[in-house]
Amino acid sequence: MMTYALSTARGAGPVYRQLCDAVRGDIRAGRIAPDARLPSKRALAAQLGVSVLTVETAYAQLLSEGWIYARPRSGHFATPVAAPPRARPAERAARPAPLAGAAAGPPALDLAGGKADPEFFPFTVWAKIVRRLFAEKRAELLAPTPPAGAPELRAAIASHLRGFRGMDVDPERVFVAAGAETLYAMLVRALGAERPWAVENPGHRTIAAVYRQCGADVRPVRVDASGLDPAALEASGAAVAHVSPAHQYPTGAVAPAARRYEWLAWAASRSGRVLVEDDYDSELRASGLPIPTLQSLDSAGCVVHLETFSRSLAPTLRVGCLIAPEPLLPRFREVFGPLSCTVPNLIQFALADFLSEGHFARHMARTRTRCRRVRAELLQALREGPLSGRAEVSEDRAGPHLLLALRTRRSDAEISSRAARLGLRVRMLSSFYDGPAPREAAGRIVLDYASLAPGSAAGIVARLAQLAL
Amino acid sequence: MMTYALSTARGAGPVYRQLCDAVRGDIRAGRIAPDARLPSKRALAAQLGVSVLTVETAYAQLLSEGWIYARPRSGHFATPVAAPPRARPAERAARPAPLAGAAAGPPALDLAGGKADPEFFPFTVWAKIVRRLFAEKRAELLAPTPPAGAPELRAAIASHLRGFRGMDVDPERVFVAAGAETLYAMLVRALGAERPWAVENPGHRTIAAVYRQCGADVRPVRVDASGLDPAALEASGAAVAHVSPAHQYPTGAVAPAARRYEWLAWAASRSGRVLVEDDYDSELRASGLPIPTLQSLDSAGCVVHLETFSRSLAPTLRVGCLIAPEPLLPRFREVFGPLSCTVPNLIQFALADFLSEGHFARHMARTRTRCRRVRAELLQALREGPLSGRAEVSEDRAGPHLLLALRTRRSDAEISSRAARLGLRVRMLSSFYDGPAPREAAGRIVLDYASLAPGSAAGIVARLAQLAL
Repeated sequence: MMTYALSTARGAGPVYRQLCDAVRGDIRAGRIAPDARLPSKRALAAQLGVSVLTVETAYAQLLSEGWIYARPRSGHFATPVAAPPRARPAERAARPAPLAGAAAGPPALDLAGGKADPEFFPFTVWAKIVRRLFAEKRAELLAPTPPAGAPELRAAIASHLRGFRGMDVDPERVFVAAGAETLYAMLVRALGAERPWAVENPGHRTIAAVYRQCGADVRPVRVDASGLDPAALEASGAAVAHVSPAHQYPTGAVAPAARRYEWLAWAASRSGRVLVEDDYDSELRASGLPIPTLQSLDSAGCVVHLETFSRSLAPTLRVGCLIAPEPLLPRFREVFGPLSCTVPNLIQFALADFLSEGHFARHMARTRTRCRRVRAELLQALREGPLSGRAEVSEDRAGPHLLLALRTRRSDAEISSRAARLGLRVRMLSSFYDGPAPREAAGRIVLDYASLAPGSAAGIVARLAQLAL
Repeated sequence: MMTYALSTARGAGPVYRQLCDAVRGDIRAGRIAPDARLPSKRALAAQLGVSVLTVETAYAQLLSEGWIYARPRSGHFATPVAAPPRARPAERAARPAPLAGAAAGPPALDLAGGKADPEFFPFTVWAKIVRRLFAEKRAELLAPTPPAGAPELRAAIASHLRGFRGMDVDPERVFVAAGAETLYAMLVRALGAERPWAVENPGHRTIAAVYRQCGADVRPVRVDASGLDPAALEASGAAVAHVSPAHQYPTGAVAPAARRYEWLAWAASRSGRVLVEDDYDSELRASGLPIPTLQSLDSAGCVVHLETFSRSLAPTLRVGCLIAPEPLLPRFREVFGPLSCTVPNLIQFALADFLSEGHFARHMARTRTRCRRVRAELLQALREGPLSGRAEVSEDRAGPHLLLALRTRRSDAEISSRAARLGLRVRMLSSFYDGPAPREAAGRIVLDYASLAPGSAAGIVARLAQLAL
């Protein structure tokens, strides 16, 4: 119950502003709990004896300042600005240090990606498909699929890639496995740990981590505005190069055709060279048509194409696949041949139906629309909100992430620890470098907006502003 | 419609035998289709104008000969004895050779294990749990779990191991992954490919295959009646030894306490030695109490315990876990730390509920009862059926598989290809050897009965008898 003494006396200032100050004060002090729902405008107006317009103006002001956020058809909520409660030290000390991913509690606001929004995920369709599978495919659910995955899933993926990426894929070339990291490990097993592997620097650190764990000699290679630098690649002595032409993470670089041909020329110039094309989130590009894949341009058969459904659907589905080029097919068959497919049948069959019944295409269309909307809202809130003049968007080419350069004297380490205290999960650009990051990477936040809800931009910017204080 | 002219004339022999001969002839010739349901005794008696007792006697004889099989509450069915129809050669040639696991069609009768029976799998409970998760745990289903798995699953597994195997397991020591093969690969990544790895010979060939793919130097070590031979292990120069004390596959050896202590002494005698305890199907033992695990006996902390739910539930679930000993915990944390858990959240949460709500314990109790019944029926059918005197059971200690030694002059290759022609999937003992199998392994079939239905033994023995012809 919010009860405020509002004064209409002269000198007390406009009532909407008094209300605004009172609510802001309560949110700052934690008297209104983080993410608590505020009363409806009508209810609060009746309670305080003011007009609905007054409350509406106050809420609009708080919204634009980022103290509250709105959810369509749900109302307004307090932006979490205080540090979230933490486990007591005694409790924490009693247990061994948790794994990297096992934080004490979920962070209050996640700007580092890797999550899907439960409000947006097509649960109803999935529940229906799963129910049908339990009713109609019992024997199939229990009979192991071929090592590379169920034929229906491989066919559905091939057809999806034909429709969305213009790729001509024989289902026999599709090898399904439990997510991108499982595929990275299978690549090392298939192509050999003894060869040097080039990875993008900066890039997803997990890629290099998995290759190293599997015994590969990893060579980080610099990324410029068009992606992995071909001269640096040649100089690295690598025999396999892991590139993400559609959308380099975290720089956002999209490789132009010329760069793609340079890579292909690199691969073709010596026997046994292989390009791994990581097509992490090409479906979510903010603007423009999808760009033809590297594998489509490759006539020499030296590009392995990687797809994952982690970004487009949910990382917790754990499904990805590689598309082997014809010349490497026997080798991948040999490596996958003795193994069981790592994806449970239930998930394989459900995804196959989800793809082949058109649900995936519909979901992607909705996701793209939403991503574009969130991006527009974020850019506006950054321009007009409390970070205005204190930060700039330095990269937003392909989405669904952007680089935000804070004007601050804080070090990246200070920003990160401050973010953790504020209940914000953010990743600094510098954390994506293998080895020391260049000076110009400092103060840049990689802001991943794929899973943010429309209407949340102002609140997010308000919290980011606290980082720069 | 089965219509036979039966004669009561003298010299025609008993009517039940005439009926028996007629039905047998029809099944052999394929006029009664494989797995076709026979008329009920009452219906056939009425149709042929004979007594129900006559039909009953005929069916009993055909049952005992293995030409027909019974299903409780469903009636009698023709045992498939003819070769199943195969794809036309033209069709087969058009596609590239399929992967090892991707046979042209499912074999008609699978005696090689690796499958679960859809009639027996607790689908109703799973469907209920999954429905509940979709309704109540949407946010949790989409938020990545810690790399080692969801805390609720790790806790449920720890509590299961406490109850079933008497193990004292801190959930922090549980690392969940997509099945045993994924765990084997993680072991190499954690313990190092540069060390020599001992594997059981004979043993599951996939174990050695995964280790080799991951770059490990694999040393096959002989298995005697108590399991992996400690003297041969010492001589192998291995630093890691993969053993299955509860139930060696395919020999069925159960390691006695003395052998376990020999292995532990081997591990303790040099720093850095590790034992991998593969507890593949200990829950399904045919008789006797479960034996304490190697990890429970180990005070030096050098045993990694492996569990999989492939045998106890279904291989297509793709869930297993390793229990790290305390001293290796930091190393496993380091390796799993940067990775995503390879098991989809839906499967993780469903299994956690299945375990913690007691469904798993109930299912295992039912499974054990069923396995014992099938085993008794199989042993009886082998003693009394058409293989009587032509084969012997040479090993059936722990279940759920037994070794059947055929008295035949055929080579193992001949038996295998004949089995394939008859639509039988069987594995020969000799196929489990790394390198040439010893002479005494010849003619032995590894008969896996974990997923066979009660009432099927006579039919199976009838088909096995064709192998020895």
